[in-house]
Amino acid sequence: MVSQANVVVAQSGGPTAVINASACGVIQQAMKSDSIGRVFGATNGILGVLNEDLFDISAEKSQTIEALKRTPAAAIGSCRHKLKSLDESRADFERILDVFKAHNIRYFFYMGGNDSMDTADKVNKLAHAAGYELVCIGVPKTIDNDLAYTDHCPGYGSVAKYVATCAMEAGRDTEALYTADTCTILEVMGRNAGWIAAATGLAARSPQDAPHLIYMPEAAFSFDKLVTDVREVLKNIGRVFIVAGEGLKDDKGNYVTADSGAFGKDSFGHVQLGGAADMLKAVIEKEVGIKTRCNKLGTNQRSAMHFASLTDVHEAYMCGSAAVENALAGVNGKMVTLVRAEGPDYVSTTALAELIDVANGEKKVPKEYINESGNGVTEAMKDYVRPLVQGEAPLRIGQDGLPMFMRFERKAVQKKLAKYS
Amino acid sequence: MVSQANVVVAQSGGPTAVINASACGVIQQAMKSDSIGRVFGATNGILGVLNEDLFDISAEKSQTIEALKRTPAAAIGSCRHKLKSLDESRADFERILDVFKAHNIRYFFYMGGNDSMDTADKVNKLAHAAGYELVCIGVPKTIDNDLAYTDHCPGYGSVAKYVATCAMEAGRDTEALYTADTCTILEVMGRNAGWIAAATGLAARSPQDAPHLIYMPEAAFSFDKLVTDVREVLKNIGRVFIVAGEGLKDDKGNYVTADSGAFGKDSFGHVQLGGAADMLKAVIEKEVGIKTRCNKLGTNQRSAMHFASLTDVHEAYMCGSAAVENALAGVNGKMVTLVRAEGPDYVSTTALAELIDVANGEKKVPKEYINESGNGVTEAMKDYVRPLVQGEAPLRIGQDGLPMFMRFERKAVQKKLAKYS
Repeated sequence: MVSQANVVVAQSGGPTAVINASACGVIQQAMKSDSIGRVFGATNGILGVLNEDLFDISAEKSQTIEALKRTPAAAIGSCRHKLKSLDESRADFERILDVFKAHNIRYFFYMGGNDSMDTADKVNKLAHAAGYELVCIGVPKTIDNDLAYTDHCPGYGSVAKYVATCAMEAGRDTEALYTADTCTILEVMGRNAGWIAAATGLAARSPQDAPHLIYMPEAAFSFDKLVTDVREVLKNIGRVFIVAGEGLKDDKGNYVTADSGAFGKDSFGHVQLGGAADMLKAVIEKEVGIKTRCNKLGTNQRSAMHFASLTDVHEAYMCGSAAVENALAGVNGKMVTLVRAEGPDYVSTTALAELIDVANGEKKVPKEYINESGNGVTEAMKDYVRPLVQGEAPLRIGQDGLPMFMRFERKAVQKKLAKYS
Repeated sequence: MVSQANVVVAQSGGPTAVINASACGVIQQAMKSDSIGRVFGATNGILGVLNEDLFDISAEKSQTIEALKRTPAAAIGSCRHKLKSLDESRADFERILDVFKAHNIRYFFYMGGNDSMDTADKVNKLAHAAGYELVCIGVPKTIDNDLAYTDHCPGYGSVAKYVATCAMEAGRDTEALYTADTCTILEVMGRNAGWIAAATGLAARSPQDAPHLIYMPEAAFSFDKLVTDVREVLKNIGRVFIVAGEGLKDDKGNYVTADSGAFGKDSFGHVQLGGAADMLKAVIEKEVGIKTRCNKLGTNQRSAMHFASLTDVHEAYMCGSAAVENALAGVNGKMVTLVRAEGPDYVSTTALAELIDVANGEKKVPKEYINESGNGVTEAMKDYVRPLVQGEAPLRIGQDGLPMFMRFERKAVQKKLAKYS
């Protein structure tokens, strides 16, 4: 390895409350190392690399870097730019290598989900085919919790804590006002996996507690079943609180609702969802005849730093830090994973998985976590998620009573290459 | 006053994070008094009185009552049942008096908005016309902050703190991912008054910060202006974060969107709104051509105990406590108000207003709090709201990592009257 090699840190995909804690782990660990020169941030993920749009994180104040731990979203900047196969996107991959070479970048730490791990894997393979010494390590990040080879994903514990609390709180609202607003639907994220919806099961400590019904993409959804379920809950307790994943599908795998407009797909080709709750509301109001409200937390659920899980912040940091430790120890082409130790007490450690395996995997909520009726979760699911929501992440509150977040100063790294188009 | 007179405490309308803190103030203050016998809760507001559906709060554990301070929604139970004029609803009003007489109820503390103050005023007047000694005191409650004769309303500080924080956090999400999701709309409550939307202005400490545009019902809305505003912000900072009140109206006073279905009106006759953000999204995507996301916090904004304002909790308790103190001192037919002292430091005290005045009043966001373009707030608005969001209400967190809320045991008061229909 060339001495004083430089580092690129990049963030990709949908932000989370703790992806910046992972960045903090990478940055602080890298800045400790004598064999690392500068730590560069790639503005907006792989787009920043393609555009040679880098800034010098090493020049930032140490308190700015430390404050990453309590700042949500993706402070370096994220993107949804997906590279295709090596053959289809060869020019892009070669450009990435050119940028790395121009700035003596020998370490690439990429925080993201399976699409990002795919990109990191391809960059890594191309570098090695070209004889360029490069270490690519992935850092897991997704509120969806759908990455394979890891017990859970940084970002999930925080969204789980927040949406479960939101279900609990709005459930009390429905309980208070059931004579007027008898049914409430909380729509949560999760395109193909119901992990976020499932987490709200933790809020139901008793049959009185919300949520009373949880619908996840893993269990085939039908409106007939919905109406039956709602009538049953209504008969028992006089109100209904429903949590619905945005990606509900019928028994043929078709989405219950899918926006088919101009912006109906994201740039990774995924169908953009939304409106599942509205569909359910319309059916419940018509068939059951009870007033129904919809809450859609949207991007607020993935950015809710103000009630993030301390465990999640710690683990996110640990994953970032472990990525650098492993890279310096000669590991390459891997993603850091989280491992849950056996035993009664929750202990997590990091391990490694092949980038390519993570890229090609997807972990859905297993059958044993979903109840037989397909409208709730089991105790096993609650046992799985409970340790992940422990502790409240510290905030710094300003004199205006609101949280204080950091922003980088973003001292630009001078460009050395021609503009890329 | 008959010795050992009993008390009824009731909650009405949409829940808030702190209406239970007001209930706690009423209950704890009433239970201290030698001249008060039992404190009864009316299950679901005035419906509980009509149905003689009372429970004995005096029999509840003291820690249950204390925990009201950290439990959102309306633990006694709320409703949206509106009584009409004395002539139109005479039977109802007489039934209320019959129930009060049957249980020697001499104090009626009603927490709610202007409709509830109207009910309390009518009950009070009927009792006195009938020669029945009764004291009716109103306790202000509304996230909408639209009650006249009070500087602000308990419930507002907490929703303000929460939605401003949500705008700040989701704003960071849009900032991180603007290359894909360029625009976000946060839809907040506020049927006729834009106080909740206006509060989010506090989140914008710099031009980079969300929200960049705030639309309130007080400023005439037009889609042409929206498109111009969005293009302008986009040109300056490359992304747009919008806060939209649910009750936006055009220059003729027509709602931008109004659900006209079977449940299009609530039982007070108000048009049920929702979908303003969806309308704005559709126009922005079509006319400006940028992907737009919608977050609708719904009832989660008014029940967000997990990030409630400590100032709001204290003031809500103070209003409840002051209601009892005033009642015992011989005051009647009034609502407790909050008064902001002159001077550089924020100090609030309670005062009193006539129930009938509050019932007939409505306080909108004044012109001097809205910017000239009608798409944001002034420094005066920020100065108004800043003291109200100070401090974080304490929570008790369970071993499962989620907040602990109380529920009453609800020992029923034996009915003495025939069933009312």
